[in-house]
Amino acid sequence: MGKKIKLGIIGGGGDSLIGVLHRVASFTNDNFEIVGGVFNPNWEENIGFAATIGLGTDRIYKDFDTFISQECALPAAERIEVVSVLTPNFLHFPMAKKLLENGFHVICEKPLTTSLEEAYILQDIAQKTKAVFAVTYTYTGYPMVRQMREMIREGAIGTIQKVDIQYYQGWINPVIHDSEKRKAVWRLDPSKAGISCCMGDIGTHAFNMAEYLTGLEVNSLLAALNTLYEDNSLDIDGTVLLRFSNQVRGLIRTSQIATGEENAFQVKIYGTKGGLLWEQEQPNAVTLLSEGKPLQVYTPGHPYNSELSLKGTKLPPGHPEGIFDAMANIYLGVAQAVRKEPYDAGEFPPIRDGVRGMQFVAQCVASDKAGNQWVDL
Amino acid sequence: MGKKIKLGIIGGGGDSLIGVLHRVASFTNDNFEIVGGVFNPNWEENIGFAATIGLGTDRIYKDFDTFISQECALPAAERIEVVSVLTPNFLHFPMAKKLLENGFHVICEKPLTTSLEEAYILQDIAQKTKAVFAVTYTYTGYPMVRQMREMIREGAIGTIQKVDIQYYQGWINPVIHDSEKRKAVWRLDPSKAGISCCMGDIGTHAFNMAEYLTGLEVNSLLAALNTLYEDNSLDIDGTVLLRFSNQVRGLIRTSQIATGEENAFQVKIYGTKGGLLWEQEQPNAVTLLSEGKPLQVYTPGHPYNSELSLKGTKLPPGHPEGIFDAMANIYLGVAQAVRKEPYDAGEFPPIRDGVRGMQFVAQCVASDKAGNQWVDL
Amino acid sequence: MGKKIKLGIIGGGGDSLIGVLHRVASFTNDNFEIVGGVFNPNWEENIGFAATIGLGTDRIYKDFDTFISQECALPAAERIEVVSVLTPNFLHFPMAKKLLENGFHVICEKPLTTSLEEAYILQDIAQKTKAVFAVTYTYTGYPMVRQMREMIREGAIGTIQKVDIQYYQGWINPVIHDSEKRKAVWRLDPSKAGISCCMGDIGTHAFNMAEYLTGLEVNSLLAALNTLYEDNSLDIDGTVLLRFSNQVRGLIRTSQIATGEENAFQVKIYGTKGGLLWEQEQPNAVTLLSEGKPLQVYTPGHPYNSELSLKGTKLPPGHPEGIFDAMANIYLGVAQAVRKEPYDAGEFPPIRDGVRGMQFVAQCVASDKAGNQWVDL
Amino acid sequence: MGKKIKLGIIGGGGDSLIGVLHRVASFTNDNFEIVGGVFNPNWEENIGFAATIGLGTDRIYKDFDTFISQECALPAAERIEVVSVLTPNFLHFPMAKKLLENGFHVICEKPLTTSLEEAYILQDIAQKTKAVFAVTYTYTGYPMVRQMREMIREGAIGTIQKVDIQYYQGWINPVIHDSEKRKAVWRLDPSKAGISCCMGDIGTHAFNMAEYLTGLEVNSLLAALNTLYEDNSLDIDGTVLLRFSNQVRGLIRTSQIATGEENAFQVKIYGTKGGLLWEQEQPNAVTLLSEGKPLQVYTPGHPYNSELSLKGTKLPPGHPEGIFDAMANIYLGVAQAVRKEPYDAGEFPPIRDGVRGMQFVAQCVASDKAGNQWVDL
Repeated sequence: MGKKIKLGIIGGGGDSLIGVLHRVASFTNDNFEIVGGVFNPNWEENIGFAATIGLGTDRIYKDFDTFISQECALPAAERIEVVSVLTPNFLHFPMAKKLLENGFHVICEKPLTTSLEEAYILQDIAQKTKAVFAVTYTYTGYPMVRQMREMIREGAIGTIQKVDIQYYQGWINPVIHDSEKRKAVWRLDPSKAGISCCMGDIGTHAFNMAEYLTGLEVNSLLAALNTLYEDNSLDIDGTVLLRFSNQVRGLIRTSQIATGEENAFQVKIYGTKGGLLWEQEQPNAVTLLSEGKPLQVYTPGHPYNSELSLKGTKLPPGHPEGIFDAMANIYLGVAQAVRKEPYDAGEFPPIRDGVRGMQFVAQCVASDKAGNQWVDL
Repeated sequence: MGKKIKLGIIGGGGDSLIGVLHRVASFTNDNFEIVGGVFNPNWEENIGFAATIGLGTDRIYKDFDTFISQECALPAAERIEVVSVLTPNFLHFPMAKKLLENGFHVICEKPLTTSLEEAYILQDIAQKTKAVFAVTYTYTGYPMVRQMREMIREGAIGTIQKVDIQYYQGWINPVIHDSEKRKAVWRLDPSKAGISCCMGDIGTHAFNMAEYLTGLEVNSLLAALNTLYEDNSLDIDGTVLLRFSNQVRGLIRTSQIATGEENAFQVKIYGTKGGLLWEQEQPNAVTLLSEGKPLQVYTPGHPYNSELSLKGTKLPPGHPEGIFDAMANIYLGVAQAVRKEPYDAGEFPPIRDGVRGMQFVAQCVASDKAGNQWVDL
Repeated sequence: MGKKIKLGIIGGGGDSLIGVLHRVASFTNDNFEIVGGVFNPNWEENIGFAATIGLGTDRIYKDFDTFISQECALPAAERIEVVSVLTPNFLHFPMAKKLLENGFHVICEKPLTTSLEEAYILQDIAQKTKAVFAVTYTYTGYPMVRQMREMIREGAIGTIQKVDIQYYQGWINPVIHDSEKRKAVWRLDPSKAGISCCMGDIGTHAFNMAEYLTGLEVNSLLAALNTLYEDNSLDIDGTVLLRFSNQVRGLIRTSQIATGEENAFQVKIYGTKGGLLWEQEQPNAVTLLSEGKPLQVYTPGHPYNSELSLKGTKLPPGHPEGIFDAMANIYLGVAQAVRKEPYDAGEFPPIRDGVRGMQFVAQCVASDKAGNQWVDL
Repeated sequence: MGKKIKLGIIGGGGDSLIGVLHRVASFTNDNFEIVGGVFNPNWEENIGFAATIGLGTDRIYKDFDTFISQECALPAAERIEVVSVLTPNFLHFPMAKKLLENGFHVICEKPLTTSLEEAYILQDIAQKTKAVFAVTYTYTGYPMVRQMREMIREGAIGTIQKVDIQYYQGWINPVIHDSEKRKAVWRLDPSKAGISCCMGDIGTHAFNMAEYLTGLEVNSLLAALNTLYEDNSLDIDGTVLLRFSNQVRGLIRTSQIATGEENAFQVKIYGTKGGLLWEQEQPNAVTLLSEGKPLQVYTPGHPYNSELSLKGTKLPPGHPEGIFDAMANIYLGVAQAVRKEPYDAGEFPPIRDGVRGMQFVAQCVASDKAGNQWVDL
């Protein structure tokens, strides 16, 4: 480590939950210092928020364009190096694009963009500028998710033959049944949320997890989405059948009307030798099923854990780390990449994962519109 | 209760697991006495098994036809009243048919028959003879399954909006990857197992559970089955998308290649007010999710349980009953029906449930063959 | 197996829970047939109950003495061989004594007697008559309890260094706080329950489990009992510190005022290599902790299980068996002993275990009375 | 919030685990900025560590005395306000004393001191200087621990009648059985660890939790400690019987030879209406047992949670926060106290809790030495 990396933040002010998550993550491993940004389009709130979090206001800018022009006017050594984009979805693309074009590294919230075309454009630019670009699929930062990835890679469950990933929430139930209430939800408004609600918001996490863990690519899918009401145009529930590169079958199950569920993101992967089970709400345990043997539960911080898992664990076994620590591990990965230190490909989700997510959403919608037909990915 | 009902058993000899399950179930509530049957087509083994279980050999018959003719020759008061058919699947139809035609009540293992046509024929005869006919979907005998049924009926989770039922096992993994081994498995032989392995064996349990619990009917389905190898013709894994009568969506997930899983039959049902979760491997707990409230776990034997649940619980809370007790509850239901005592429709699965199961399997195969198209049920 | 063993039952009529438990257990493995007994001191109820459970009334006797005299008058080959004593505690001694003296084998509910002296007398007689004598510490019949015993014996956790056994229930809470109500509870009446309520009823199970599993003997103990109210003379809660034969320390924690607990009998045993954890309310899982390795969960019915465990498991993995099956395993053990077939010492608790239980209760009360001093056992 | 509070840190350099825990906690709620300290007695390591965590070296001092003199020489507005003492136990007293005498607020790791006398002295000084003084019993920072405290206060389980707190670890097992290895462990060296190993290290957490949650005081105790080997003078396992102010009984069970356990700190508290169960390894769930009702599981972030719990929860339900977040909540409490903002007494453990912890350890040792006699507290 050493000198801290200068971090700027766009968005995430006020009582933004994603804001506190990124701030704490940036501090956690002593790699970043927040030096400025634009927390809010409203100047009073912007500057007020900076004060609230104890930040000097020299480099709090009135808007994104000013941020770019002023920062670029600074000597290279003083300039913000990495920018976290925490704005509403439709701003991800124009901001990330301009940041890349002006030489910044980018940490961008998911979904990467609101259309697949934008995603491809961003990916092209990022490849040209050789910037570090991370898409915050936060859950890949959990040590036990990384442990699963390594175990699969090393053959702990043999050749994969079945993938089943669930992401069930109940948060939309209280609004979906009232036509007035549901109109007021931005995630159900196509002009703000894009072509999908449920698949875009949580289906992408499930899809990313599937490819992250297995090292396989999904080749085609069949999606059945549910909008529940005729006057609601975006999915709030859906099941997606998957065929992976090597004919492996799988499925992704998502719902925002699984009433009473909190954030029930669950992974089940089976191979020729055994299976792996993980639940986000108990992130510090991975269950390994092995044919003919007692099941085993892996927990973080042990010598038996993979290097990638241990790198993301700060305390000894039995001291639960949580989602802030998962995000911190992604920031740690970015710091290493920015400093050109060695790091593992599993340490942060690159822009490719953001693009894949956009492909997934687009094809889910296409399959559903076609009457639940198989479509390529 | 009072005088015991005379029970005959066809099949279930030797080290048959289903045999011991039915025998213990018949004893448990003091309703039945086993008076005879045909345990095995081989006379030595047949008679030997009767001795092993301490049964007199007077009414052990050399074959099914002799069973029928000899029992029918007895005075009505001495005759066996109920016959449990525990034979291989393809014998269910001819035996159950003849039993019905000769005035016996029947308890038949699932699947009811090997074809849908046979199922319809049996149903017709059963309706004419007014016999009691139970199909042993054993899992519906668990007190907490019955509790869920009653809770749903009484509105505990509001109007159902999502049904997700899993039945994962790993038992076929050790044989499926070796072409010689898999040829030796009767469940993978269409001449013995019929048109389906996985859907017929465990998919039917999941389907029955879906309709049993919700009180809804599945109207159409889209199935994607997996045989894993080209030279294997029967499914060993599959996902089925469901549309229920009132447009409710659901899915059934089954696998016999979920390596390391034992008997992971799991239910998740969500409504407008909450959700219900149950796992067969922990049968004595039902989790009720209620929007905005702490989750609750219901266990058997409490005054707060439904009458239907309590009727199936013999001991106070905290004394785990298991699958033998679930089957015993089904036998209790049959005993009441035979004695023309009042009983609840949920106390044993009637022949209609066996027919529905056959419809389900047939349409899963049809949907898959059609390239994963929606088909009516 | 073969010819069934003739079983008599004393007590257990009406809606007795222990009655149905013993009856089902006796049927389960096809070893016993109930041929007679005395279910109730009231003749109408006695004979009525026999009818209810479908039993012929020839050998239902009006009282215990008649049972003895009439049965002894029968030819040896027709005589009842084993008698299950399910009466209130104070009758265990006189009945078991007379049964032994008249050549019967005995299955006796716990606690064995109401005083230690009686226990020693019974033990002496049993040794002389060489009768089979089982005390139904039911929980030792669970396959996973037997699995633990074998694992410990084989060194899975190394040398034992810590034993912690909990038995928490909440059933007495609703009555203990009302002086009228608590007077009406027979378990709190010294004339019926003897010198202890909590230790006698559930502490003895915990104590038996400690010695059953570890193969060690408790050498001394320090007990702190709680009666909660001055006008209540029997313990309803208590903690007992233990010193085992080899200086191993342990403790037993019991309560009947652990409000809301059902039957939370939990075992934690640690050795130099690892630990074993088991909970009665989830009886089909044993957790093995091994230093430096992922924890493992053992379940019944696998080839990896011990022979003693497998002998007590009737179905394949994932088909939960319960407490009826645990008791059935004890009856199976008795059947083998009666038939002079080989059996493992762990298959049923012998009279010695009943005597040890009485010693334990007596010394807990003595230690507590002495102001929580160490006393020898 | 607003201007950040100037924080100094003594100790916690190198790969100190407690160091990273405090640093992240101080950042998390944007209240503190670390401006200096003494991370290590070795100057090279001290200054090197500061660089590693990206801290300017202006206010990194060569030793504690220099820290005091230099900081005190600064204008009040620039001076460090709060100092976290993360040094070995024996330094807590002299450092905290001098810090208090020079007007600093103190956050001190537990145990507060190495003797009870020192604890009393510190408490006296702290009361005189009116400094904010927090002892980091970290586990009280968990939102669900705070939820339990509030639920008990509001009568959710009625009047408390039984307290059972476990703290089992296995970490000392690998060293305790080898006489050379155990001599090398500082926690087993009385000159460094004081009069107790197990009770001092983890027993104090259990004791603090007991009083924190119940609002009761322990009046007397009986302790049985275990050193396992004659040549080991400090306890590595022990059980403590408790009598609380109102005659409530309880116990604390601790072990460092519970082989295979990680950090199994578990709480069970029962009252006249129900019980509460919590496990540190699953910190985001509290189980409420209520007589005659289904058990309930409370999780963080819901409107049904207490204010004190919600204040310590940053994200919506289902996003697990961990032990870093628990410590952050304690720092938040301190920040409010330093700023003289309103805060709840449950937001950080005051010096009194440190003193109580020292009393507890002293009396455990005294009771054990007296042959397991009751001693007052």
